[in-house]
Amino acid sequence: MADAVKSTNITWHEAPITKEDRERMNGHKAVVLWFTGLSACGKSTLAHAVEKALYDRGCRTAVLDGDNIRHGLNKNLGFSPQDREENIRRIGEVANLFVQAGVIAMTAFISPYRADRDKARSLAGDAFLEVYVKCDLDICEQRDPKGLYKKARAGLVPEFTGISAPYEEPLNPELVVDTGKETVEESAQKVIELLKQRGVIV
Amino acid sequence: MADAVKSTNITWHEAPITKEDRERMNGHKAVVLWFTGLSACGKSTLAHAVEKALYDRGCRTAVLDGDNIRHGLNKNLGFSPQDREENIRRIGEVANLFVQAGVIAMTAFISPYRADRDKARSLAGDAFLEVYVKCDLDICEQRDPKGLYKKARAGLVPEFTGISAPYEEPLNPELVVDTGKETVEESAQKVIELLKQRGVIV
Repeated sequence: MADAVKSTNITWHEAPITKEDRERMNGHKAVVLWFTGLSACGKSTLAHAVEKALYDRGCRTAVLDGDNIRHGLNKNLGFSPQDREENIRRIGEVANLFVQAGVIAMTAFISPYRADRDKARSLAGDAFLEVYVKCDLDICEQRDPKGLYKKARAGLVPEFTGISAPYEEPLNPELVVDTGKETVEESAQKVIELLKQRGVIV
Repeated sequence: MADAVKSTNITWHEAPITKEDRERMNGHKAVVLWFTGLSACGKSTLAHAVEKALYDRGCRTAVLDGDNIRHGLNKNLGFSPQDREENIRRIGEVANLFVQAGVIAMTAFISPYRADRDKARSLAGDAFLEVYVKCDLDICEQRDPKGLYKKARAGLVPEFTGISAPYEEPLNPELVVDTGKETVEESAQKVIELLKQRGVIV
């Protein structure tokens, strides 16, 4: 803004509304809850359960998942390593825009590469909470709600995480939940406890 | 979700929190205010002035502009017609994500092509309010806060809107403000009045 004073036709205003202003208005901190894990591990289900619990507490939230990202913002991306990287890069940037807007942003994507998740973490800094939604591959494969594992085993879906493409487990996530052993309610409660411990909600 | 009932390991929940739920919580509707106009016409300044007025009323808002988009989400895009199209496509998608989250999203980009703006409109439907931030080219060029017009006239900035690239005026915007004749406060007040007329705020 330093050069703006040259202008005689624009009134320059005080600083825009900050993230802190919005957090004060909302009564909670703004963070990214980054859910990562295999296909069918329950990321979106968990994110929506957490969102319901947060809504009931009056919190402002947004869930970014395949339903609203892969068919919209990232519909021009496929599943090659390069496209997966760009997919996660964009999601990290959008999650951070929500954080700047004072919102608890929840992302529910396989996000199989550690390096890509770490880049998203570096954007959000302390506001990044990685939740590893752990679930044994055989349980995910048994669930197979969209029949994708079956197709992947038959070679009909290329580069399928866990079958023909790698999943790199988080080394040091803020939270691990195991949806093969816990109910959705139990996993969601653990996320809520994490948010309390970190001072995001009271 | 129809095929989800096959799973025996996941508890499937009620529908996620809707846009209408969030609007109810926020006490206002969620819309896109799409500010379009020449470089230095005052789009970002106006958007931030409107945001301040809305914040003071307790509204949830987000401003998307060059500061947070061109250096982040869209840093891999240039200024060719193709890249401008993809730039605006992504912004339209992100604005719509904010609307789904119950937020009044304000976008402040030149967005010179009518077809690209109309695509953004088609995403948001009735929730899209186009604000043409009109300002005579010679006034914009006189302001020139970043020295870009000078560089463009010298041929140092290719494809500069208004000089060496086209700007297609909106044919039927929801609002026109003229920042060459009005103060920022006057233009912002017109936007607030538009939001009242449309039932976005009370």
